[in-house]
Amino acid sequence: MNAILQQLAQTLEERKTADPRESYVSSLYAKGLDTILKKVGEEATETVIAAKNGKTHQLVYEMADLWFHTLVLLVHQGLGPEDLLNELERRFGQSGIAEKAQRSQS
Amino acid sequence: MNAILQQLAQTLEERKTADPRESYVSSLYAKGLDTILKKVGEEATETVIAAKNGKTHQLVYEMADLWFHTLVLLVHQGLGPEDLLNELERRFGQSGIAEKAQRSQS
Amino acid sequence: MNAILQQLAQTLEERKTADPRESYVSSLYAKGLDTILKKVGEEATETVIAAKNGKTHQLVYEMADLWFHTLVLLVHQGLGPEDLLNELERRFGQSGIAEKAQRSQS
Amino acid sequence: MNAILQQLAQTLEERKTADPRESYVSSLYAKGLDTILKKVGEEATETVIAAKNGKTHQLVYEMADLWFHTLVLLVHQGLGPEDLLNELERRFGQSGIAEKAQRSQS
Repeated sequence: MNAILQQLAQTLEERKTADPRESYVSSLYAKGLDTILKKVGEEATETVIAAKNGKTHQLVYEMADLWFHTLVLLVHQGLGPEDLLNELERRFGQSGIAEKAQRSQS
Repeated sequence: MNAILQQLAQTLEERKTADPRESYVSSLYAKGLDTILKKVGEEATETVIAAKNGKTHQLVYEMADLWFHTLVLLVHQGLGPEDLLNELERRFGQSGIAEKAQRSQS
Repeated sequence: MNAILQQLAQTLEERKTADPRESYVSSLYAKGLDTILKKVGEEATETVIAAKNGKTHQLVYEMADLWFHTLVLLVHQGLGPEDLLNELERRFGQSGIAEKAQRSQS
Repeated sequence: MNAILQQLAQTLEERKTADPRESYVSSLYAKGLDTILKKVGEEATETVIAAKNGKTHQLVYEMADLWFHTLVLLVHQGLGPEDLLNELERRFGQSGIAEKAQRSQS
């Protein structure tokens, strides 16, 4: 799994210098943050709809779109998937409720 | 990176038989699909707000929440992160625009 | 204000028998519920982004889009703005916190 | 219909000087813009879920929540429902597709 996210992150980084007319990701970067955020919102809604439709293939498809566009957002903001996975690792080993309890106190 | 998602998936699987009063994830499973989907929608909105605030730490935090709850959704639906990563791998190596072009034809 | 929502509702009702190639609303009806719901999700995200941009005109514009598409959804489901306004009237006169308190008990 | 939105707008305006401990709306104002926007995002997602559940009552309930929180947002930003309805009136009388066509050219 590691390999895919790393490779994808590298590609998203390279798209920063590609021609926006020839790369979908480059065109998103060129349009800017708000356009990327609209995509994140759209794909989240489509994930919800897919789950309600109860179609496994559609759910995986839309959720892959959602993860893809969150990765585009991360790279656009000078971050990468390792930042996200480090945060998950930081929380991990705690039960969700323990983590939630800590959060609500902060 | 691989290790974290696998370990998280295993934990989410184990939460299916845990006491909903003692585990946040188990309580989400007990409340059912709509509650999990509301969380996905909430965290997506919070990711958008965090990005607009321009605070890196807040963005990583909210996006980790979003990924976490999409993983809960996957496991609740009998799937796992490998399904998502396989889908990303299937698309990968194609430029985004090529992938989008194919999609719009299908 | 009354007149606008009533007139809009009537137009949205008439669009049910219009040619989807000649009316945006008819094309939404033809594509079905999921397409209408995606628009609701999109416009909600764009409303959030507009508010964060602090531009009054953009906020009004996006929120009008959001209300418009929720009205399309209502009419598509055999309802109308009067159902929504009746619900707001039913709650009204109670303070928000009182209303919330009641809701959490139900 | 007019009367309800006007009365609601007046109440939302009055809540600006109420005690946040005694009014839900005042507590939203006190927490600030991001909290209000999270509510807008949440209620939009709940509207989508309700529509997919095919339950008319649930749909009207969640959509009333959505409209309510967009009105809170408007008043918080120094605007009111009349700004939104004026925008809908400005567009009105044009077919949706005509309006969309104009928009895409601007």
